Amino acid sequence: MSGPVVALSGGIGGAKLALGLLHALPPHTLTVVANTGDDFEHLGLTISPDIDTLLYTLSDRDDTVRGWGRRDETWNFMNALREIGGETWFNLGDRDLAIHVERTRRLRAGERLGAITADLCQRFGIAATIVPMSDDPVRTRLRTDDGWTDFQPWFVGQQAKPRVHEIVFDGADTARLPDAVTALLRSPSLRAVVICPSNPYVSIEPILAVPGMRAALAAAPAPVVAVSPIIGGRAVKGPTAAMMEHFGTPPDALVTAQRYRDIIAGYVMDEEDREVAAALGDLPIAIVPTLMRTLDDRIALARAVLALADRIRG
Amino acid sequence: MSGPVVALSGGIGGAKLALGLLHALPPHTLTVVANTGDDFEHLGLTISPDIDTLLYTLSDRDDTVRGWGRRDETWNFMNALREIGGETWFNLGDRDLAIHVERTRRLRAGERLGAITADLCQRFGIAATIVPMSDDPVRTRLRTDDGWTDFQPWFVGQQAKPRVHEIVFDGADTARLPDAVTALLRSPSLRAVVICPSNPYVSIEPILAVPGMRAALAAAPAPVVAVSPIIGGRAVKGPTAAMMEHFGTPPDALVTAQRYRDIIAGYVMDEEDREVAAALGDLPIAIVPTLMRTLDDRIALARAVLALADRIRG
Repeated sequence: MSGPVVALSGGIGGAKLALGLLHALPPHTLTVVANTGDDFEHLGLTISPDIDTLLYTLSDRDDTVRGWGRRDETWNFMNALREIGGETWFNLGDRDLAIHVERTRRLRAGERLGAITADLCQRFGIAATIVPMSDDPVRTRLRTDDGWTDFQPWFVGQQAKPRVHEIVFDGADTARLPDAVTALLRSPSLRAVVICPSNPYVSIEPILAVPGMRAALAAAPAPVVAVSPIIGGRAVKGPTAAMMEHFGTPPDALVTAQRYRDIIAGYVMDEEDREVAAALGDLPIAIVPTLMRTLDDRIALARAVLALADRIRG
Repeated sequence: MSGPVVALSGGIGGAKLALGLLHALPPHTLTVVANTGDDFEHLGLTISPDIDTLLYTLSDRDDTVRGWGRRDETWNFMNALREIGGETWFNLGDRDLAIHVERTRRLRAGERLGAITADLCQRFGIAATIVPMSDDPVRTRLRTDDGWTDFQPWFVGQQAKPRVHEIVFDGADTARLPDAVTALLRSPSLRAVVICPSNPYVSIEPILAVPGMRAALAAAPAPVVAVSPIIGGRAVKGPTAAMMEHFGTPPDALVTAQRYRDIIAGYVMDEEDREVAAALGDLPIAIVPTLMRTLDDRIALARAVLALADRIRG
């Protein structure tokens, strides 16, 4: 099969599978809808962490050793900022900063986030399309033990330590789904929609909160398949497992499937979680290795996800 | 004598003498009034080139080999910006950028340029005060063969090539002189006002254009002494000589003295220009080496300037 594939993704974990899909699919058939709920204003710059992680990962510019940001990065800006008493809780590399400065400049000049992102994809030679979930700002806000906060100050600034009680997506009510996404999800040739193994609460649900998104997924002529972000009761990276516990749920591979139950037609989970699979009833599943250490792991998982979708689509 | 000294300065050339004055004077007696007419908005950042040159020079952070910017600078931001099609005609080093980002953030938050500059002076351990000529924006605009332009796009972007026909200081009419400068220029203990060897047209005259500045200099209880930016018919750096020719004046050491004739009580010029000194009539002068290659040169010139001022003050 060779129709277009749409992936919904947050940052690091989602981007790994997106890279696998990019390699597993024919060029220019993958569209990644990126979470922008983590976007925030910092030092006067508009920062889009998940879009940038996708840009760096899909263009082979990511630092796979550090696990975030750009490869061959330098930190002279941060060091000089520290020297003059600036805010340094969020690390901005010298190369990375170019994207924040240029994106902020273009946004202020009235350009849409989607157009800027498409241009960056092209500049970086990425044979896929990265689309922000909306050109309109949506901001994930958390109510924690310390009160209300934006996502990044909690996640990075407070190392995700304060317990989370409530999550809202400010601006989601009036955010508009990009026309290109609506059109793609209606396309008769659509092959699959993949929900990447990202944090359901703060990476995928902001995307689902954009009005029209759930309906578009429900009406899509291709199966929606999600990949569990939990392996053996633990999240590979980030606060997913901790948040599940904050919300009183055991951190296991079932939680995500249950949160997505209205929209998914299939689920991919790790071999370590085989014993909980029965609880999913007759939901089509694939049980495969989901830990993505190497590029081959990513491609193999992408192929397993696509195979499950193709099997469901029939 | 040990009273306060006020220096009026633009960028590179002026900062060299300011550094000499800093070394020649007791700590915390030097106040440098910096030109902000070259300030401009670039990539969404407010850039103050002359203030920054003074900050770097007076704190021994300047790159004396390249002749501008910070020492040990790196250019990864610029390289990454070039990769994504950003504007690269104005070089911004990775360390330098920290000041632009932080200053812009603080200005947008409502802080005054003077307060931000004072804080940077302190952070950099500078035993002098750098004061912007006004907290209100003044922008030097040039009418050239190519039409109206801001200063930096002409000076850096067009390498100062298009002929200059007219110069205006947008905003100067309503700009307010900082109270601290007014108070200092009235101080009975004031020792001298030094006009640094900066470009008269675009570095010193914007400062003189701030309402109240000329009157404050005229009423000051200490002599105003200027240093020629021209040595043997050439400017050491920058477009001073070229601009003199654009305005139909031979580029010699007299031009500056004549432009400042209403406000100066003394003039310092280079040995190479000895033969034109007679044209200055009975204006007290000092003829000394004015080319500042080394720190010792800067200190020696500063001492000569102060000696002339002290002689005039009597």
